[in-house]
Amino acid sequence: MTVRQLDELTWAELRAVAPASIALLPIGSQEQHGARLPLGADTLLVRSVVARALTEELPEVVLLPALPYGLSPHHRFAAAVTLTASTLQAVLAEVLDSLVDCGFRRLMIVNGHGGNDEPMRLAVKSAALRHDVAVAAANYWSLGSPGRSPGHAGRFETSLLLAAEPALVRPVTAGASASPSPPPLFEHPPYPGLVAERHGEWARAGGVTDDASGAAADHDLLAGLGARLAAAIRAFDEATAASHGAQHHREGNS
Amino acid sequence: MTVRQLDELTWAELRAVAPASIALLPIGSQEQHGARLPLGADTLLVRSVVARALTEELPEVVLLPALPYGLSPHHRFAAAVTLTASTLQAVLAEVLDSLVDCGFRRLMIVNGHGGNDEPMRLAVKSAALRHDVAVAAANYWSLGSPGRSPGHAGRFETSLLLAAEPALVRPVTAGASASPSPPPLFEHPPYPGLVAERHGEWARAGGVTDDASGAAADHDLLAGLGARLAAAIRAFDEATAASHGAQHHREGNS
Amino acid sequence: MTVRQLDELTWAELRAVAPASIALLPIGSQEQHGARLPLGADTLLVRSVVARALTEELPEVVLLPALPYGLSPHHRFAAAVTLTASTLQAVLAEVLDSLVDCGFRRLMIVNGHGGNDEPMRLAVKSAALRHDVAVAAANYWSLGSPGRSPGHAGRFETSLLLAAEPALVRPVTAGASASPSPPPLFEHPPYPGLVAERHGEWARAGGVTDDASGAAADHDLLAGLGARLAAAIRAFDEATAASHGAQHHREGNS
Amino acid sequence: MTVRQLDELTWAELRAVAPASIALLPIGSQEQHGARLPLGADTLLVRSVVARALTEELPEVVLLPALPYGLSPHHRFAAAVTLTASTLQAVLAEVLDSLVDCGFRRLMIVNGHGGNDEPMRLAVKSAALRHDVAVAAANYWSLGSPGRSPGHAGRFETSLLLAAEPALVRPVTAGASASPSPPPLFEHPPYPGLVAERHGEWARAGGVTDDASGAAADHDLLAGLGARLAAAIRAFDEATAASHGAQHHREGNS
Amino acid sequence: MTVRQLDELTWAELRAVAPASIALLPIGSQEQHGARLPLGADTLLVRSVVARALTEELPEVVLLPALPYGLSPHHRFAAAVTLTASTLQAVLAEVLDSLVDCGFRRLMIVNGHGGNDEPMRLAVKSAALRHDVAVAAANYWSLGSPGRSPGHAGRFETSLLLAAEPALVRPVTAGASASPSPPPLFEHPPYPGLVAERHGEWARAGGVTDDASGAAADHDLLAGLGARLAAAIRAFDEATAASHGAQHHREGNS
Amino acid sequence: MTVRQLDELTWAELRAVAPASIALLPIGSQEQHGARLPLGADTLLVRSVVARALTEELPEVVLLPALPYGLSPHHRFAAAVTLTASTLQAVLAEVLDSLVDCGFRRLMIVNGHGGNDEPMRLAVKSAALRHDVAVAAANYWSLGSPGRSPGHAGRFETSLLLAAEPALVRPVTAGASASPSPPPLFEHPPYPGLVAERHGEWARAGGVTDDASGAAADHDLLAGLGARLAAAIRAFDEATAASHGAQHHREGNS
Repeated sequence: MTVRQLDELTWAELRAVAPASIALLPIGSQEQHGARLPLGADTLLVRSVVARALTEELPEVVLLPALPYGLSPHHRFAAAVTLTASTLQAVLAEVLDSLVDCGFRRLMIVNGHGGNDEPMRLAVKSAALRHDVAVAAANYWSLGSPGRSPGHAGRFETSLLLAAEPALVRPVTAGASASPSPPPLFEHPPYPGLVAERHGEWARAGGVTDDASGAAADHDLLAGLGARLAAAIRAFDEATAASHGAQHHREGNS
Repeated sequence: MTVRQLDELTWAELRAVAPASIALLPIGSQEQHGARLPLGADTLLVRSVVARALTEELPEVVLLPALPYGLSPHHRFAAAVTLTASTLQAVLAEVLDSLVDCGFRRLMIVNGHGGNDEPMRLAVKSAALRHDVAVAAANYWSLGSPGRSPGHAGRFETSLLLAAEPALVRPVTAGASASPSPPPLFEHPPYPGLVAERHGEWARAGGVTDDASGAAADHDLLAGLGARLAAAIRAFDEATAASHGAQHHREGNS
Repeated sequence: MTVRQLDELTWAELRAVAPASIALLPIGSQEQHGARLPLGADTLLVRSVVARALTEELPEVVLLPALPYGLSPHHRFAAAVTLTASTLQAVLAEVLDSLVDCGFRRLMIVNGHGGNDEPMRLAVKSAALRHDVAVAAANYWSLGSPGRSPGHAGRFETSLLLAAEPALVRPVTAGASASPSPPPLFEHPPYPGLVAERHGEWARAGGVTDDASGAAADHDLLAGLGARLAAAIRAFDEATAASHGAQHHREGNS
Repeated sequence: MTVRQLDELTWAELRAVAPASIALLPIGSQEQHGARLPLGADTLLVRSVVARALTEELPEVVLLPALPYGLSPHHRFAAAVTLTASTLQAVLAEVLDSLVDCGFRRLMIVNGHGGNDEPMRLAVKSAALRHDVAVAAANYWSLGSPGRSPGHAGRFETSLLLAAEPALVRPVTAGASASPSPPPLFEHPPYPGLVAERHGEWARAGGVTDDASGAAADHDLLAGLGARLAAAIRAFDEATAASHGAQHHREGNS
Repeated sequence: MTVRQLDELTWAELRAVAPASIALLPIGSQEQHGARLPLGADTLLVRSVVARALTEELPEVVLLPALPYGLSPHHRFAAAVTLTASTLQAVLAEVLDSLVDCGFRRLMIVNGHGGNDEPMRLAVKSAALRHDVAVAAANYWSLGSPGRSPGHAGRFETSLLLAAEPALVRPVTAGASASPSPPPLFEHPPYPGLVAERHGEWARAGGVTDDASGAAADHDLLAGLGARLAAAIRAFDEATAASHGAQHHREGNS
Repeated sequence: MTVRQLDELTWAELRAVAPASIALLPIGSQEQHGARLPLGADTLLVRSVVARALTEELPEVVLLPALPYGLSPHHRFAAAVTLTASTLQAVLAEVLDSLVDCGFRRLMIVNGHGGNDEPMRLAVKSAALRHDVAVAAANYWSLGSPGRSPGHAGRFETSLLLAAEPALVRPVTAGASASPSPPPLFEHPPYPGLVAERHGEWARAGGVTDDASGAAADHDLLAGLGARLAAAIRAFDEATAASHGAQHHREGNS
């Protein structure tokens, strides 16, 4: 088992390991996260979860530089550095195409920002049609808990960032932390299974989905998410290694 | 309560009812559905569910002509009439923009095809940012059961189409109905919460996700889905009527 | 001779008949049609003409679901659900590409809306360059009368819709039916052969090109248009069958 | 009456005359024109017709540099320098937008190449929706004869180029001049009013629509086309001057 | 040595000479050039420089019609007929692709407008990746003097146009000719090597970069630029002829 | 003077400092850098130069996360993770637009990869037209030495990376380090001022422009580049602070 950084490899080294490795691309965002969390919270958290995963038993992995910009137009009301949906889709498609060109047969995206979810899924499906490869993707918070909603700048993310980067979490200020009431429509749809959006909800909700005033650093949660990501990578490896003829090579290296 | 067909209204009638009505857009697909179901299965089913819903108590609704073409490139291995992802996104955005121009403040998409899910979600989010409106969307099969997977051309869809359009379901032929083994990666991801796609899986699986040889017409399921869609429309109406100043007008008309 | 509905065929049935059949795609619009006709007039009329044609002697035809949305930005001043020109071009190109993928060698579009004319022509020309196929297209009103102008929401369309869907035509109201004076520039260009458009003309003309107050149901016209479409399909079949090697197959089936 | 060349005006001069002038944009192509005519035939001819028109009585006109490249993918089988349809549409839209920005209220395109027809029409319609202006367009060969087909590299164009640029027409060579038999499908559709295209027809027809071996310089035709273009410009001027408040200014200058 | 005009060649003649010739595409602009120079100054100048070059000893060259429209959005504050950056890139890519289709292996763009520089460079790089050809490009003013800045509508361009087209240069008017002070940021960046742009600078500078009141016709400069372009064409020919197998053919023809 | 990391600020903090700060965006690439340097060399170097600059006296700066992917299609022959030119242009435009939305009036890009140069320049020019802001950009290697060519994976970059990240530079191997002969056309154009590209040159040259076998860590060069970047930032600040009304605010904070 070896984890390599793509940006530290020469091209010949990359080509040598790509066929038997999983390429891992973290994607995040730069967007408002309420009064206490920094703009880069999603990128910082997905990097932290990946870093935890890389301490676990893993197959051959080549880690790409994280894409720090995502799809966050709904956070421009406060502040965001955002791509459009079509541009993010193009970026992901072109990065995946490049990785296939480099020799990878198995690609995986790990996402730290809810708004990236649909472009990520579209990119995965499309790349697997264009190329004879296997492609996977996950929102870090839903691994092992597919239905979990992480909220935004609420208790979940605050607890994690207090564990991962405590210096970047501002203290609670008086009166600033109440959950929006009624809860935002996008977070609490009026009927189960319905997607619902209302203009201006993010501003009305103050940019957060729930009250994080009682959040404390949750090191177990962060470690657990890292362990689940590692387990997901192993499971993806096992499900796809043989079918791409990488089994032998992989065994020889591990 | 009145349900109107957009294509049967004059423009003046449409403009008169639009502000207090919900515009309802069904979207489907034309794509292979195995040996027994027709290419239009998804469009036929979403129309059937909508038709059932329209027999229930509803707020003011203006029903649009269904979009019969969706995102089905993964079914081209057999046969599909498909748009690309970017074109479907453009179509949905432009239809929603047009509806806002016509005076609607509340818009809803009902989807019959899994492959349309991500473009539909992106369209909903984007339209609610561009316009001061509320927008909702649902896959008909997940209303009330958010986690349900309908499969493709398997027991779920066959049971529904046997109830909705029995003449269009071909009889079971010997040896043709076994579930693919192992199950396709996209339907049974190797880790919970992971999205996973492998090139060629749809062809390997014979274009179906599961064995439908024992399926029988399930009228209760179809009726239940219609009732749930009606309930979702009512819930969306209640959640959004007041905030768009349509409450008074709506009461006056009902 | 058999006419089949694409959405009712299984994929295997479609692939079996496609090489010797003509794929027929009706396209329409949803747009203002004055005080008396519904938004869907163009789609309803093209469907009616196609339905009449299908009662005539025809070669093998596979009928696609009609595209209910077209290029109608000029009708947004009143009400329209419209695509942009680039999106409609993409939709048509992708539908035609899909049909070629399904095995069709001969494709035909029947159009019900003047605004779709240029994108339709571009789609026909482009598809015949991309693929080794024959492609045809017609505005239903110009078959056999290439120079005919149907006007918009005037006597021609009103007479037809009174024959095809009389319940959808509203009665004449006092004072509402005069022809615009002077006639709109786009309908009466200042020099023969000149295309001319002036901002705001559609609104000035009240959304109609001519007075339809004296229109009566014209069943002969509707039947004649259907017969001409059938004749055009037969002529296209005869002109193209041999050159695509479909002659034998077609004879065997008819 | 004054005819000005846009490329010879300073910007202040342009802004001074634009509101009361008609901007005139010739568009052509570079594409195969059989064995006798040069690639630039369409551009050369539209320029010649414009030059003849400019010798007639005209309102204030500002002539733009001709766009020498058009939509000719169907001539790549031999040789063509061509834009794609979407790029030509963008070019025309951006040139028209620029002219409106410069102060023009009346714009006119004169086209020398059949393949440019649909993009030109779309550009005219779209520009008149985006801006409070009047926009016209014409194929030079159809002015006064809306139904005329000029063919391609046949008797019509050869007769004109022999009059306009005789040195550029190569002599007839033995055996090279027969009309294609059967005539190409796109030129002789199988039913009146049907648009029909078949893959490979241009190559089969040898790149020409009809036999031009007997063609002689037709100076009357060329002069007549110039006169008709001048008449069309005057008619467009009269139809639109008042409605854009340019009447007074125009009279003062003429 | 022969210089041919592409628009005057038949397609067969073009295909015969293309493999051993260099295709030469001049590109310009239509944009404000201050109080004295016409909108077409850049196109006129690049044509003049090319015309001078064509009087020198040259390898086989096929000259294309100049593209008269470029990337000039920064001049819209006064007057410009401009494409967008993406459209100009598409135009250049499609023209280069067409030329390769016609049989050329060596392509060269000569540019008259600074704003076209980046799209031109991108087009050159991209075409040489897509096709097995050699592609070159030059701003006419920088040949032999790579670091030279021609300014805009200042002494350099005025001196040249007084030599090339003196009738198109308006006389100096009192008080109009002072250089902007401070000089525009884009022309005099605050640090060497920094690209710097400030909103509104072109308007503040009066549309010119420097005082041209003392400019006189500089025939030597114009002749020198023509000679340098000829030298550059010869050097490109020598550097690329052998590598594309054109050496033998070329010698046979010269 | 304060340097802040955008990803570590809350949105309120960002909005407070943006009007008087310069937003600084580093952009790099992931592409082959010969046998000794890693794929991320350009990103690593631009980060190193920025890090050095941040140790100097600076005005208020907000540093963005580096964009790790650039325009490198010419390096796919070996290995690259690359965007297309149109996607990179979209990314840069959208990031700059977002920054203006966040309140910045002064924006600066620092580039580590030659292939990004043209998209970067286009982005700068276009953003300064769309918004009332000042925008700057620089290739780190050309600050103070506008004409310097850094080569690719040759002596210049190797000397810098040996200073910045020595562990990532592989040792010289026997026979691998000769400069390509003849030198690649793109690096040594056949005439001064000519841009020239030939298909396959990068592969022929072995992916490097010059022999780096004798390169040694050049700490002075790296420090000098950092100092020049700091000087450029200060110069840009001085040239633009007053014109955007930020002078007072800036003084108050420094």
